[in-house]
Amino acid sequence: MFSPGVIVAPATAVGGALAVIRISGDGSIALCDRFFKGRKPLTDCSSHTIHYGNFMDGERIVDDVIVALFHAPHSYTGEQSVEISVHGSRYIVTTILELLCKGGARMAEPGEFSARAFAAGRIDLSQAEAVADIIAADSQAAHLIAATQMRGNYSDTLNSLRDKLIELSSLLELELDFGEEDVEFADRTRLDNLLQQTMGVVAKLKDSFRTGNAIRNGVSVAIVGAPNVGKSTLLNRLIGDDRAMVSDIAGTTRDTIEESITIDGIRFRFIDTAGLRSTDDTLEQMGIVRTLKAVGQAQIIISMAEPNGSFENINTTDSQTVIRVINKCDTTDNQNITDALYISARNNSGIENLLTALRNCVDTTALYRGEPVVSNLRHYESLCHAYEALTAAQSALHNSISSDLLAEDIRTAIHHIGCITGRITSDTILHSIFSSFCIGK
Amino acid sequence: MFSPGVIVAPATAVGGALAVIRISGDGSIALCDRFFKGRKPLTDCSSHTIHYGNFMDGERIVDDVIVALFHAPHSYTGEQSVEISVHGSRYIVTTILELLCKGGARMAEPGEFSARAFAAGRIDLSQAEAVADIIAADSQAAHLIAATQMRGNYSDTLNSLRDKLIELSSLLELELDFGEEDVEFADRTRLDNLLQQTMGVVAKLKDSFRTGNAIRNGVSVAIVGAPNVGKSTLLNRLIGDDRAMVSDIAGTTRDTIEESITIDGIRFRFIDTAGLRSTDDTLEQMGIVRTLKAVGQAQIIISMAEPNGSFENINTTDSQTVIRVINKCDTTDNQNITDALYISARNNSGIENLLTALRNCVDTTALYRGEPVVSNLRHYESLCHAYEALTAAQSALHNSISSDLLAEDIRTAIHHIGCITGRITSDTILHSIFSSFCIGK
Repeated sequence: MFSPGVIVAPATAVGGALAVIRISGDGSIALCDRFFKGRKPLTDCSSHTIHYGNFMDGERIVDDVIVALFHAPHSYTGEQSVEISVHGSRYIVTTILELLCKGGARMAEPGEFSARAFAAGRIDLSQAEAVADIIAADSQAAHLIAATQMRGNYSDTLNSLRDKLIELSSLLELELDFGEEDVEFADRTRLDNLLQQTMGVVAKLKDSFRTGNAIRNGVSVAIVGAPNVGKSTLLNRLIGDDRAMVSDIAGTTRDTIEESITIDGIRFRFIDTAGLRSTDDTLEQMGIVRTLKAVGQAQIIISMAEPNGSFENINTTDSQTVIRVINKCDTTDNQNITDALYISARNNSGIENLLTALRNCVDTTALYRGEPVVSNLRHYESLCHAYEALTAAQSALHNSISSDLLAEDIRTAIHHIGCITGRITSDTILHSIFSSFCIGK
Repeated sequence: MFSPGVIVAPATAVGGALAVIRISGDGSIALCDRFFKGRKPLTDCSSHTIHYGNFMDGERIVDDVIVALFHAPHSYTGEQSVEISVHGSRYIVTTILELLCKGGARMAEPGEFSARAFAAGRIDLSQAEAVADIIAADSQAAHLIAATQMRGNYSDTLNSLRDKLIELSSLLELELDFGEEDVEFADRTRLDNLLQQTMGVVAKLKDSFRTGNAIRNGVSVAIVGAPNVGKSTLLNRLIGDDRAMVSDIAGTTRDTIEESITIDGIRFRFIDTAGLRSTDDTLEQMGIVRTLKAVGQAQIIISMAEPNGSFENINTTDSQTVIRVINKCDTTDNQNITDALYISARNNSGIENLLTALRNCVDTTALYRGEPVVSNLRHYESLCHAYEALTAAQSALHNSISSDLLAEDIRTAIHHIGCITGRITSDTILHSIFSSFCIGK
């Protein structure tokens, strides 16, 4: 992961007016100078300046380019870096990358620029991961989670937590050193309080994953109901309105899942389901099996019924929210089922209330207050392990189990929290994290 | 096309690690300053410098960005310009574009940045068109044509041609002014020589279109022959070898027509054709009709036969080249048809010779000597019109037709040549040219 040398990569997708090529490593400016013909050598230029000139292949001009220079350590990677802005042609980008590689650079691995920023101590691991998340973020809330994490607010919380645990641990270690003299340096009540407090913070972070994960990946919603209750009409209604909003700005054609909408900055993914009914048709039965599976995985279930209010029986778990909706409300005056929303998908009535109900299923109070929200599965798992270790420590403390076991539990918790920010890491973990990045980042 | 104001556009495609937003127009730096939080105001900074900071939506950080400043007239458009480099997220790009538009900018039309560069006199029309071509160029030769044109070598030729014609014309106009005194300012022999010379240059440019067009759009090749002669095997052999070459560099996945290969920097597009034979099958007949149409449009026809050498009868035009190929040469020792290439598509033998034969169909001598090659249909048509007018002028001269008609013909030629570089243009033409550009250019 961290082999030295000058690395190069295309930093932009092909298909625009411009393309940017990123170069990083000691000697990257001198390398560019061998191909660049401008007013003066790039090695004579200051950091944070841009220069117009030609990128040459011997006597042949490959393109007229703009070169931006970053001297170490004032770059993303902390190394000497160059960004070359060229005309957005695949041929030009490929030719320049080939020339730079012939000149001694090598193609960067996915995520290698961020890995170098991490290795140089410019960002910690959770911040590096947030960079990948920020690129993938497709809604305001998902962006906010990633941006908060990238700017280190999350790392600060984790680091102060870790400091607290290290303090606890060192008090206990001191006791162990003096073990035979039977001294108690650590005040048991104070230890208990500190543990309690730490567990509170970890629990809150851990619990925020439900929201964080939903926001990051989109909240999954299944629309369930008998055949012909109006599920597809509702879906089209929900999606149709959103599409118009998104297509305002040219060049932003969506490549995300078609059936998703953004409400108040949160993305909701709709799972198309077959109508539920008992049937002998094999194909239809298969559809129903898939529906039931989708229902099992959905975070929100919109259960739809005709005005007579006969809802399907659906098994749900505690973590799922059910919104009961009665469709075709235009065909009845009788709106007496109090725990259901009355809508008419066809006439577009009651849809606003449904959108509000969907929106209210996601608690974003903490997020908009600027508190850290966990959205990364790796972090969530580390927090669960840390919480387990802290619970063990607490029980050891309450049951007066010897200090060395208590200390061991706390060290385990410190380890797992350290894994999140990368204070404790293995090359294997680092590789698996950075290799999920896109090229050029 | 040329309405004033600050324009903004995404300059890169979505999907990379970075995205670049382009802003141009008087006041664009001050506009950015309203959203940018860095070490100091951007309006206090020099041209050609880059600045790290946050792009803010009120109190909320949208992204940490790198801003590059260009003071007028030292930018692509000749206007004050800014390029904002952000994390490559659709959400971030859209949000920043929306904020800038709320702040008073507007979304640029396709090609509007280049149109402004043209309006400011920084590039002429043929150079602006070359910018669009350079972005689309997918082979070395296509790139070279566009790059030569973009750097103005082509414009220089046209301008000196135009100057020569203006000189001719003014001599004639002078005569007309003194018409009644029956003076001949223009030496008829010198006029004839000048006309001859000019027509030579125009003819050469005009004729270069055949090569230029082929290179720009790829040379179309039809493989024709009886069923089971090995057409598909050959096609797979040709394409397969090329694919390996192209996939060396990560991130360059091709989105061009699948059945195309690059030989020595020139792209050849293969047209899949049905086997030719008389048949009663309606579907197969339709396939054969399509084949014959493809053959009609192809620039090169590879006519394939079995070792017995029974080639299909194909009607071709003068501008088409036929390469006769005998396949399955491994099944015979008798290679006595001298005007055919013997290959074995299956055993990969003789393929190199076929590639060389294909390559030699395209005459790139002028191109690689740095001479202008016309690749743009609009230019070609203007050159044809100019040539027509010059022919008329020549015949007027030889038949001693009156000077005013001669002068009229020369003015027509001047007009058509002026259209290419944009010395003479209408808003309609300009609009149709620039609107074919991509957004952000």
